[in-house]
Formats: sequence, C-alpha cells, structure tokens
Amino acid sequence: MKIRDDVISIGGVPISEIAEKYGTPTYVYDGEKIIKNYQTALNYARKYYSNFDFFYAIKACNNLQIANLLVKNGAGIDAASVNEIYLAKALGLNGNKIMFSGNFLSDEDLKVALESDVLINLDDISLFNRLKKIGLPEIICFRVNPGYGRSNVGEYVTNAGPNAKFGVHPDHVVEAYRLAKQSGIKRFGAHMMPGSCILDADYFHNITEMLIDIILKVALELNINFEFINLGGGLGIPYKNNETPLDIDATMKGISDIIHNFFTDNNLPKPKILMEPARYFVGNAGYIVGKVHAIKNSYSKIIGTDVSMNVLARPAMYDAYHHIYVDQKESDPREKLGLCGQVCENTDFWCKDRDLPETIDVGDLIVVKDAGAYGYSMSYQYNGRLRPAEVLVQNNKTVLIRSREKFKDIIKNMILPYEIQDNVYAILNNL
Amino acid sequence: MKIRDDVISIGGVPISEIAEKYGTPTYVYDGEKIIKNYQTALNYARKYYSNFDFFYAIKACNNLQIANLLVKNGAGIDAASVNEIYLAKALGLNGNKIMFSGNFLSDEDLKVALESDVLINLDDISLFNRLKKIGLPEIICFRVNPGYGRSNVGEYVTNAGPNAKFGVHPDHVVEAYRLAKQSGIKRFGAHMMPGSCILDADYFHNITEMLIDIILKVALELNINFEFINLGGGLGIPYKNNETPLDIDATMKGISDIIHNFFTDNNLPKPKILMEPARYFVGNAGYIVGKVHAIKNSYSKIIGTDVSMNVLARPAMYDAYHHIYVDQKESDPREKLGLCGQVCENTDFWCKDRDLPETIDVGDLIVVKDAGAYGYSMSYQYNGRLRPAEVLVQNNKTVLIRSREKFKDIIKNMILPYEIQDNVYAILNNL
Repeated sequence: MKIRDDVISIGGVPISEIAEKYGTPTYVYDGEKIIKNYQTALNYARKYYSNFDFFYAIKACNNLQIANLLVKNGAGIDAASVNEIYLAKALGLNGNKIMFSGNFLSDEDLKVALESDVLINLDDISLFNRLKKIGLPEIICFRVNPGYGRSNVGEYVTNAGPNAKFGVHPDHVVEAYRLAKQSGIKRFGAHMMPGSCILDADYFHNITEMLIDIILKVALELNINFEFINLGGGLGIPYKNNETPLDIDATMKGISDIIHNFFTDNNLPKPKILMEPARYFVGNAGYIVGKVHAIKNSYSKIIGTDVSMNVLARPAMYDAYHHIYVDQKESDPREKLGLCGQVCENTDFWCKDRDLPETIDVGDLIVVKDAGAYGYSMSYQYNGRLRPAEVLVQNNKTVLIRSREKFKDIIKNMILPYEIQDNVYAILNNL
Repeated sequence: MKIRDDVISIGGVPISEIAEKYGTPTYVYDGEKIIKNYQTALNYARKYYSNFDFFYAIKACNNLQIANLLVKNGAGIDAASVNEIYLAKALGLNGNKIMFSGNFLSDEDLKVALESDVLINLDDISLFNRLKKIGLPEIICFRVNPGYGRSNVGEYVTNAGPNAKFGVHPDHVVEAYRLAKQSGIKRFGAHMMPGSCILDADYFHNITEMLIDIILKVALELNINFEFINLGGGLGIPYKNNETPLDIDATMKGISDIIHNFFTDNNLPKPKILMEPARYFVGNAGYIVGKVHAIKNSYSKIIGTDVSMNVLARPAMYDAYHHIYVDQKESDPREKLGLCGQVCENTDFWCKDRDLPETIDVGDLIVVKDAGAYGYSMSYQYNGRLRPAEVLVQNNKTVLIRSREKFKDIIKNMILPYEIQDNVYAILNNL
C-alpha cells in the first residue's frame, strides 16, 4: 500500500479504481507482497538451515488463488480439517506436503486423513488408539504442548500452555511415541504450536528449546529418529504503529542453531525443520477497501462504514486493532472519532477515539490494514449483510478471486415453505 | 425439550433419531414452542392494550420456515438491512408490516427502503436529510436513544445509552420530527431499543417512561400524533439455571399502563404499541444437537464436541453461557470438566469447569440449550468447518429446513486458478 499526494493505492492500483470496479467492502490482496513475505522468511530460514520448509496454514485465508501463490513457490499446506485437506489436494499437493493438525477429531476425520495419505499430526494419545483401529500411517507426528504459550492477539488465542486445549502434556510425550513405535510405526515427526502473533525472537528460541528438550528425551529413550520437527506458526506482524516487527533473521538463526546444536551434540541425525505460518505471509498483504456510509453527531461523533463485524470479526471477537486510512485525506488535520460498522448491535462499535481526518465524510473510501489473515476466513452473513468480494492485485492489475455474496446466498440452503416459493422467485428475478 | 429416563427429546422426537437422520451438529427448532412463546407474549400484551403488535427481529434467526411460523400468526418483521426487507417480502408481507431499522445506512439502502414502501425508522437526523433527497415516505419514525441502556449478554450488546452507536440523542428528537414535519410528512411513529436480553420488568417500565417523556414533548411542541410507539426488543430469556425468567405479565402491564396514562393524561390519541422481540420467541425453542468427538486428559480433562465456535459463536464472542445436556447420562454422577469445539484456536475453549456427567464419552450426543436466537444466524465457515443443518420439529415430526453445508459451499464463490480446476472437479466428483 502506498499513499502519494494522499491518494492510496494497493499494488499500484488506486483504491478508488478498485472500489469503482468491485464495490465495497472488498478484500484486496497484494500478490507480490505475499510472495515477498514468503521468500523473505524462507531465505532467512535456509540461510541458517538448508532443510527448512513452510506449510501455509490455509485456515487464515483459504482463497485458492492466494494459497496457490505460495504453493507454486514451494509451500506445503497446514490443514485444520478434512475440508482443508481437500483444499490442499485441490492445489495439486501430494500427501507429504500436507500436514493435518486437527483438534478433537472424529473417527471419520481420521479415516479421511489416512486415505488421503497426509502427514497426520495427533493432538492427543487417545487419538492414536482410535487411529490404530482404522489403520496406521507410515509416519506419525504428535503435537506437543510444552506447557508454555503466549499470544499477542488476546488471551483466548494462546495456543499452548496449561490453559490451552491443544497438544500432548510433556509428561505423556514419551508414552505417545512408545505406543506408536510398539504399533510398528518407524517414521516420526514432532509438532508444537508456540503461540499466536509473536513479535519477540527470543520467545521462539525459548519455546523451541522447551520442545527440543522434550523431543530429545523421546529420541534417546526410545531410540527413534525424528524426520521433521514442525515448530508451528505464530510469526507475528505488527498491527499497531508503535509495535516493532519481528526480527525474522534473529528468529530463524536462533531456531536453526538450537536444533542444529541439540541434535549434533547428541549424535542424532538432524531433522527437517517445518513451520506453518500464515499471518506472516498474508496478514499485512491483505486490506479491506470500505466506504463511509453515514456520520452521526449524537453522544459523540461516530463514523459508520460498511466494514461491519460480519466483514471483519477481529475487532469484535478479539478486541483487535486494525489501522485505518482515509483516501485523499490522510494529510488533513486529525480528530478523535468513534468508528463502527452497520450491524445492529453495539458489538459492531470498533472504538470511540480513533485518530482520523476531521474532514472525513460520507462517501469517503477507507482502507483497513493488515486484514489478510483471519479476515475473510472469519467473515459471515449476519443482519442480512453479506460476505464481501476478494480481489488479487499483481503486476498493477486487479482480478476478482471471489465474488461478492448476493441475496440468493442467504437462502441458498434453505428449504422454503411451499406457500412462499413464488414470492422468493419473484424477488430473485427482480434483483 | 424433555428428559425421560435420561432420554432427551425435542418436540417429542428423541435426539438420537434426529442425529441419526440429519447428522451433527444440527440446529433443531421446536415449532410449537415458538408459536407458544409468541402467543403468550401477545396474549399478555393485548390483555392490557388491545392495539399491540409484534414485529419479529429476523436477524436473530432468519430461516424463512421459522419466520413464517410467526408471520402466519400475525407477526410483522423487523428488518435490519435491505436483504432482510427482501426476506420479509418473501414472507408475503406488505410494507406496513415491515419495519426497517438499519444502522449507518447508505443512500442505496434508503432508496430500496423507500421503493419497498416499508416503515422507515431512522437512526439519525442526518439520514433524514439524505432520505429527503431521494424521496419522502408517507410515515416516518426515528429511533430515540433515551440515554440509558442495559444488556444481560455483555457490555458490548448494550444497544442504548451514551456508549451505544444507536439512536437520536434526546436533545435532538424534537428537531428531528420538526424537520420531518416541515418537509411535509404528516404521519409519525417513534422507536427505541431498550437493551438486550433483559429479565427485569421494572427496567422496561423505566426506559419506556424515559422514551414516552421524550416523545410527549415532541407531540405537544410540534402538535403531531404518534400512530405507533415501537418499544424495540430486549425481552430476555434465562440462559443460566439460576436466572429468574422475565415476568412477561408484569412487563406488558407496566408498559401498557405507562402508555395509556401518559397519552390519556395529555389528551392525545393512544398509539399502537409495537415491540420487535426475537430472542423471546425463538431463543429457548432452538437447540443444537451435537456429538462428543474426542476426550483428552492432559493439563485437565477436556471434552471436545462438534459444536465449535463457528457453529455457535456466542460463547467465544460474548462469553455467553449455554447449558448442555448429555443424552442418556443426565442422572449419572457429575464432574467439573473442560468443554471445547474443534476449531484450531483456543477461543474455541468454552469453559474449564462445566458440570457434566463423569461418564461422558466419545460418541455421546449433547444438546446445547437456548440456541435459537443468534445461533445459526451468526454461524460461519472457519477452519474448513461448515455451517450446520437446521431442522424443525412439529407434531412429533422433523423436517429439514436448511441443508448442511458441503465442501462445495467453501469454494462456491471463488474464481479458481485455471491450472487447478481439474483437481477441484475431481474432488467434487469424489465426494
């Protein structure tokens, strides 16, 4: 995103053109920035550890055009459910490039995973016993919860530590792999999810040490090798202007050194390192172009835009901050203003004191920053308000990659009462 | 819902039959209970004030089969957006049975509302000036924010008071109606939204007095009559077992008395009273039938079900409580257990100390209570997990009223990369 003479453009295209062509609200992704984010992380990773791969966590942004950008550049896919396995297969990936890390899975989930020949990452010992009844994969991985976790998004998104629902307790990890070995499995991986949106390189080093400490005990006690260690995601991006970006060089150097040293010191073959970020690749490369629809002067002055809670749930769900720019007015004098969406509940009132141009007016275009991860993927229909369009910008050109929902998408799966079907068809025909 | 010999049934149908026939998770609505809730409220309302109508707030549960049950019994529709106006029209309603109470509306919204000939309820004076440029309705209504509000759901769902984004400030209400009158409008209504899920009859009386106090000033100062007073929704239901249900008799008596007395004391013609509840009609008549998919013993014992945050967002979004029953095990000894869904983030960890049968096991069916309002209507696709089915029970019979989403619903609006289209079609053909 660039602002020149107050004109905002994304990937070289002015947002006024995007709004004119596709309407608002619209998610806009900068394709070159996504690839650059991925290559930057990969270059630093392989600078210190050549056997390093990324599996994109497709849950963060599941548009296949976006995932395809990463897959074409060598990324695998981290799938959180059977349907995400299908998305990965749609991208043409083989099973060894798909890591399935579900949570509280059903037998049916396990069956599809086994048939799909993906890397199965089990969240609990009990799942291994259930999987065994269906069949055994060639390689097995357990998600370890090192007993420590952090989130920069909100306490509820802390995906490790004693308060998380995830992973195998450190005291049970040896038992988990012993069970697998005794069942005849000969190939092993290990996984953890360190946290969410972490901006501190040292944190990754500390928690990697904790994991490797646990994993080495397993390797030595059971005399097994780990083909890969998946260090999960959690590579953070700054959402607020005063946050310091993650030092990706230091992060990768530390992680690589720890794994290199621990394994060579113990005369064990060095595993492949995997990580499964998503926010780091797509977070700051995704934007929402929205519009100011009304301004109210009541108890306070409030700016109402079409970027409602159903379009971007993060402010309502996590009290998350997203910076907002106003097209053609960024140099104007500033004022503290309320900011809200159009949904009929006060949850959709983002904040009461956002620093915005005092000249902001009905019809102005806004850009919501850092909306690429957990943006569209958490959007929903509510209040009759629909899910937006998605547009990809590459080589200064825009292309529609997901159509805006229409009225028909509200009723599409409803089985309509017989007596009102004529009314519905009349409405659909008039739209 | 009934529990007999530990067998749970909804509307006379055992949930095991529902799960067998429709799968899980599934929203199940008790049609007779919805009609009974509506009739109960209406009977008490008309016992004290004959000219009393309900407009169902369709945002809470927009399945047209559910809304149709209420419309067939005389309810109008409260629409929060243009698409909800279309839903109301689909139900065969004329404009005077549709109240359009949008928030921070666009000119396009106002245009459709005007063309649809619905009752337009404006949230702000500025909207009147914009509406006037498009055209004028025969009757106009303003949403008044009496400066006071309460919510039993969470502070963010407080829809009135100085921290709410809604309504016209009391000091501006006379000005709003003066503007409308000066523009030539001759018919008037007034509206407020008192709060959300209130269980206290006195609260409704107090806030009704506040509104009427404001409205009478308008009537006397501008010499206009109010054809209707819409007192909004907010009629609460108890979610927790220790909550006392709203005294609907006392609520309606108090409201009716206030309006009767204020208007007759001032020699003004008595208006029609409208209210626009939804939770009160459908909240406790909707359930989710889910299944236990995995149980983990790690840092604590956690029960994982398929009622994930994407199926029911209220626990994650509002920290809302929903009681849960376990089929065939309600008489068993109890234990404090963790409870979560299957989404890969810790937000989907409902609680850590829910009182549940200690015998709960993988495959057990659960019922989530009070899920009829803001349940399906806030559900979404996330983590590749899909929106559930909806089933209506009437006369001891079940009927599917919305199909469960399938993999195709994830990709339906995507414009697929050319090179992967074959993969996608192969997957769709195999499912």
